[in-house]
Amino acid sequence: MDYSKFIARASEVFKASEIRELLKVVEARKVISFAGGYPDPQVFPRESLARIASDVILNYGDKALQYSPTKGVTVFRQTLLKYLKDNNVRISSNDDVIVTTGSQQSLDIVSRTLVDPGDYIITENPTYLAALTAFRTARPNIIGIPIDERGMKTDVLEEKLRNLKSSGIRVKFVYTIPVAHNPAGATMSSERKKHLLELASRYDFIVIEDDPYSFFVYDEADVTRLKTLDSEDRVVYISTMSKTLSPGLRVGWILGPQQLVDVFERAKQSMDLHTPTLSQYIAKEAIEKGVVSETAEKARRIYRVKRDVMFNTLSESMVEKSWWVKPVGGLFLMVWLPPEIDTKEMLPTAINEGVVYVPGASFFVDESGRNTMRLNFSYPSIEEIRSGIEILGKVVRRKLGR
Amino acid sequence: MDYSKFIARASEVFKASEIRELLKVVEARKVISFAGGYPDPQVFPRESLARIASDVILNYGDKALQYSPTKGVTVFRQTLLKYLKDNNVRISSNDDVIVTTGSQQSLDIVSRTLVDPGDYIITENPTYLAALTAFRTARPNIIGIPIDERGMKTDVLEEKLRNLKSSGIRVKFVYTIPVAHNPAGATMSSERKKHLLELASRYDFIVIEDDPYSFFVYDEADVTRLKTLDSEDRVVYISTMSKTLSPGLRVGWILGPQQLVDVFERAKQSMDLHTPTLSQYIAKEAIEKGVVSETAEKARRIYRVKRDVMFNTLSESMVEKSWWVKPVGGLFLMVWLPPEIDTKEMLPTAINEGVVYVPGASFFVDESGRNTMRLNFSYPSIEEIRSGIEILGKVVRRKLGR
Repeated sequence: MDYSKFIARASEVFKASEIRELLKVVEARKVISFAGGYPDPQVFPRESLARIASDVILNYGDKALQYSPTKGVTVFRQTLLKYLKDNNVRISSNDDVIVTTGSQQSLDIVSRTLVDPGDYIITENPTYLAALTAFRTARPNIIGIPIDERGMKTDVLEEKLRNLKSSGIRVKFVYTIPVAHNPAGATMSSERKKHLLELASRYDFIVIEDDPYSFFVYDEADVTRLKTLDSEDRVVYISTMSKTLSPGLRVGWILGPQQLVDVFERAKQSMDLHTPTLSQYIAKEAIEKGVVSETAEKARRIYRVKRDVMFNTLSESMVEKSWWVKPVGGLFLMVWLPPEIDTKEMLPTAINEGVVYVPGASFFVDESGRNTMRLNFSYPSIEEIRSGIEILGKVVRRKLGR
Repeated sequence: MDYSKFIARASEVFKASEIRELLKVVEARKVISFAGGYPDPQVFPRESLARIASDVILNYGDKALQYSPTKGVTVFRQTLLKYLKDNNVRISSNDDVIVTTGSQQSLDIVSRTLVDPGDYIITENPTYLAALTAFRTARPNIIGIPIDERGMKTDVLEEKLRNLKSSGIRVKFVYTIPVAHNPAGATMSSERKKHLLELASRYDFIVIEDDPYSFFVYDEADVTRLKTLDSEDRVVYISTMSKTLSPGLRVGWILGPQQLVDVFERAKQSMDLHTPTLSQYIAKEAIEKGVVSETAEKARRIYRVKRDVMFNTLSESMVEKSWWVKPVGGLFLMVWLPPEIDTKEMLPTAINEGVVYVPGASFFVDESGRNTMRLNFSYPSIEEIRSGIEILGKVVRRKLGR
């Protein structure tokens, strides 16, 4: 039977990723990987979670193993809201929260409900690859705004918005990762945050704030959320427990105006009915018993060291005219290499030498950034980081003929 | 801020369900509910699952709490394939399996990858409401084929296919629930199964077989899967552990031709990255330790009695000219009342008398079936079933003025 005619459109919408296929092959080999985005398993609170999981099933099994509301288990949503308040996330009286099956589902929900074909949306350039993938299924026009060490360049954004408006084009939302940007590593300055919110008000768009990292930053940094600064209920706040507890539970959420959350709920109803009940009960207990804050603290301690090793080794090993930001948090560093380097073209050589990374171009809306690479520092060991970066330094120098 | 312009299309696509809103209100009150589709919590293997969850986290926490492949945890997929073989599901050499976040996600994946706007797809009429919801987001033309106690009327299907073909219209797939149909309660006869597969071959379409129930039927019944009878790799087989282990884990799967599963995988990648790793590890152990087959056996024992009580009480309490099938499995009975009755209009009275059900019309592709209601027998207690059905009998008689 020939299936291709059945999936012609889907094959176009859900593209096979060359890189992902390559990484699958690499997984089997013994190379140092800077390619993934995995937490270090030593951060996982195994003993606590084993006890919590067992207790929850024994004590609340009737509910914890049962179907649950699409918006999330009620007692977990209450705990979550308190947790967010305790972490200085402002919750407006008009807000509601929906539990999602991880941030990826949050992005998919946003895409399916807020984006119509042909709509204009704006992201940083580069931006989180999986957000681009989710948004693209709805076939919008995506505009990328450059980013530097203080985050999205809101002056460029303003100019862009002005031009769009004069062409009669409205923007639906701006998607941003203000803290420890994936992949760029930048954190948005308070001036730019305020500027972004002013623009949102003036040009009447929604701000999607994707914030997986601000719960465990490594340095002193102003991580005041856009959500907290927002006085017009324009910010939809997406976050997750993947880095502060366990990605294997798939527990994320969207906090935003109730009118939007109601639509998100109806979309999720047809997507997977609800997020696993057991995961939500475990997450609830983990917040209440302090396991989440302990895990965040452990992540902070372990990743700070790894980040420093990667940052310092880069400074020692990388050729001049390379550039990167020291991220205050998160799991990634992005390196801009000299423009002669094409990181996708260089990848097979790097793998041959024993190191894999993600070529940066796919994080760019316009597939620019061919001279960039994204490096993960949370998963590899300190020794791997050190020797992997040294190897990359050599590979780059050789490419440049130095 | 006015959000309505941002979600105009989404509000149309993801409709608020009048019934669902009503049920939310009812939940707070003390009424006998035949409305849900919940397993009886006494079926849940709490002790076993508590032990398994704890062991899995302690022994395999590095993996069980981590991100995992989109297609599913490899060791779980192997266990699952063996489980399916042991349960007489034929797996062709061309097949692959993808783990999903419950059957609802399987349906959503099918919808997003196989259905293009304007496509023609066929379902039984009535059919599973949440399948309709998932399919409708892709804006197809849905054709409903009537069903009787031997399942979908394949002679009507054949005629329909002939007419469509003569109008130059191709059908993408036929969606069917062959065993213990939700909501109609019917089970497809072997003749009709063969006929359906012949038609699939002749008219070149895919068959989506949704099979949540055949792992625990209550009577002697031929539950040979379409997947097993299929010699042309036309059947895509959807099933779940929601009824044989726990719906709270959200573990379902799609078994089908590899070429299709590859597209399903790419779609799921942008939907939620992967199904919770912990749920998959728990499901794996539960299959291997025999917990799934014990749970299925327990479900069979408990639900058989409940079905019989509901069936017998209906026979005693319902007015003449009502009709229902005795289901060999599943969780539901559908009652066709005399045509004068509108079950949606009757619902407030029933709730007032202390019983809630789902009016059948929304299960019908064409919103016909206004005289039908779907009754769940798995969740209410035996006493509730008996008195609830007696109450419904009285409400109906009163409506008819008898």
